[in-house]
Amino acid sequence: MHSWVDGQPADTSSLRDRGLAYGDGLFETIAVKSGRPQLLERHLQRLAEGCRRLALTADQSLIRSEVLAYAAALGDGVLKLILTRGDSLRGYAADPAATARRILLGSAFPIYPPAHAEEGVRLFPCATRLSEQPLLAGLKHLNRLEQVLARAEWRDAEHAEGLMLDAAERVVEGVFSNLFLISQGRLLTADLSRCGVAGVMRAEILFQAESQGIPTQVADISLVQLEQADEVFVCNSVYGIWPVRACAGMSWSAGPLTRKLQVITRALLDA
Amino acid sequence: MHSWVDGQPADTSSLRDRGLAYGDGLFETIAVKSGRPQLLERHLQRLAEGCRRLALTADQSLIRSEVLAYAAALGDGVLKLILTRGDSLRGYAADPAATARRILLGSAFPIYPPAHAEEGVRLFPCATRLSEQPLLAGLKHLNRLEQVLARAEWRDAEHAEGLMLDAAERVVEGVFSNLFLISQGRLLTADLSRCGVAGVMRAEILFQAESQGIPTQVADISLVQLEQADEVFVCNSVYGIWPVRACAGMSWSAGPLTRKLQVITRALLDA
Repeated sequence: MHSWVDGQPADTSSLRDRGLAYGDGLFETIAVKSGRPQLLERHLQRLAEGCRRLALTADQSLIRSEVLAYAAALGDGVLKLILTRGDSLRGYAADPAATARRILLGSAFPIYPPAHAEEGVRLFPCATRLSEQPLLAGLKHLNRLEQVLARAEWRDAEHAEGLMLDAAERVVEGVFSNLFLISQGRLLTADLSRCGVAGVMRAEILFQAESQGIPTQVADISLVQLEQADEVFVCNSVYGIWPVRACAGMSWSAGPLTRKLQVITRALLDA
Repeated sequence: MHSWVDGQPADTSSLRDRGLAYGDGLFETIAVKSGRPQLLERHLQRLAEGCRRLALTADQSLIRSEVLAYAAALGDGVLKLILTRGDSLRGYAADPAATARRILLGSAFPIYPPAHAEEGVRLFPCATRLSEQPLLAGLKHLNRLEQVLARAEWRDAEHAEGLMLDAAERVVEGVFSNLFLISQGRLLTADLSRCGVAGVMRAEILFQAESQGIPTQVADISLVQLEQADEVFVCNSVYGIWPVRACAGMSWSAGPLTRKLQVITRALLDA
């Protein structure tokens, strides 16, 4: 179906858009099932937080109603919402009165091999490191060259995702996923206050685990901790959870806790 | 005048452009005088280096001829060239066979107060720090949220530019300029191997200084070195050189070496 720009069907946007010029904006990638955007409240919550941190003025209730209307028209697939700070003629200074441009794009649901979820995936150990920028950490903003470079490191189908570390060799996330470790029954995911994208599914899994009485921790993760983990999985709001079976010389088995959370997230995405 | 996309007049570009989605591309901002793009070889050289480092396939001779044709039509003003990795449907993986999309935008020459060049400018001491990413350092790529955040720190006309440090408090550059110090007759500018944009005018000034027998150095710069410098100036390929007279509690006078280089760069931009 057609894309929308500020609520109107369109396939193009202004060449002066600050999203193109500077990556001055945010995005959300939302799974849509039977016309319903999944995990919508979490997506909107993260977007509003991003708007606050980037001082991007946007009508959040208008965004909500457009996402609902677009999703209803899309049916099944993936809805991508891009918010930019509108146009600029030249220069980094923005008009403080500018309101965000809303871009909605639809695409078919990606088809992943069922083995990814069933048997687990192998991660490519990316050499590209995430840089530390506390002002942008956690946000799903449009400055994504690190992910582009990391994703270009492998092309074979053997690796379904990549593992990204920061410059201090801390284990942070996947290229398009967050990462969880399970050690002695406890769920551990990286602290994203210096770098990384705070995924909607990551937040939902932390919430679900706590609801189930599973201990959780958000902290820095070392490669040793990764290697010694009992179970490892990656997650995002489109595919849910994939167990990780290997990365470089390390290997793990999909254990009971991963399977339990996988059932929960699958139910959420299929709701 | 109209913008061009891949050589054709256009005012919009695809919503699926990776430049918009990820900032996956590069740009150049070129001064145009009487139809001639100034410092063209240096701009094209940096662009080609950026293409190489981002593995962006582009026809460099086609870019050259389009820039020349567009500049001739523009007459006087600023030509902005954006190169993106074309369209993507979804996901960070790029088609390895993709060639870059060429976007050319023209605008009027910005009008700066003559006092900027004559009496010098005051720099705003930005709190936004530049993050370290050696894979992207030096490139004029489209991931510019740090500059957007830094430029939003001040709105008064008293500050013509901002001073940006890295996370280790090293002095790196302006928000849209490079920075030079002059101490005991020697020209010093920051090493940009960890962060920063290696400006075309910075390269030209280093070249011109060496041609004139002025000693130059590219190295890390501390705040103490900045404070103790005899002269300080900022530069870019549109306005040339502005002496810096103050930043926070520090102050300097525009000295003879700044004035000498200012004459040289003015002649280059007016050529």
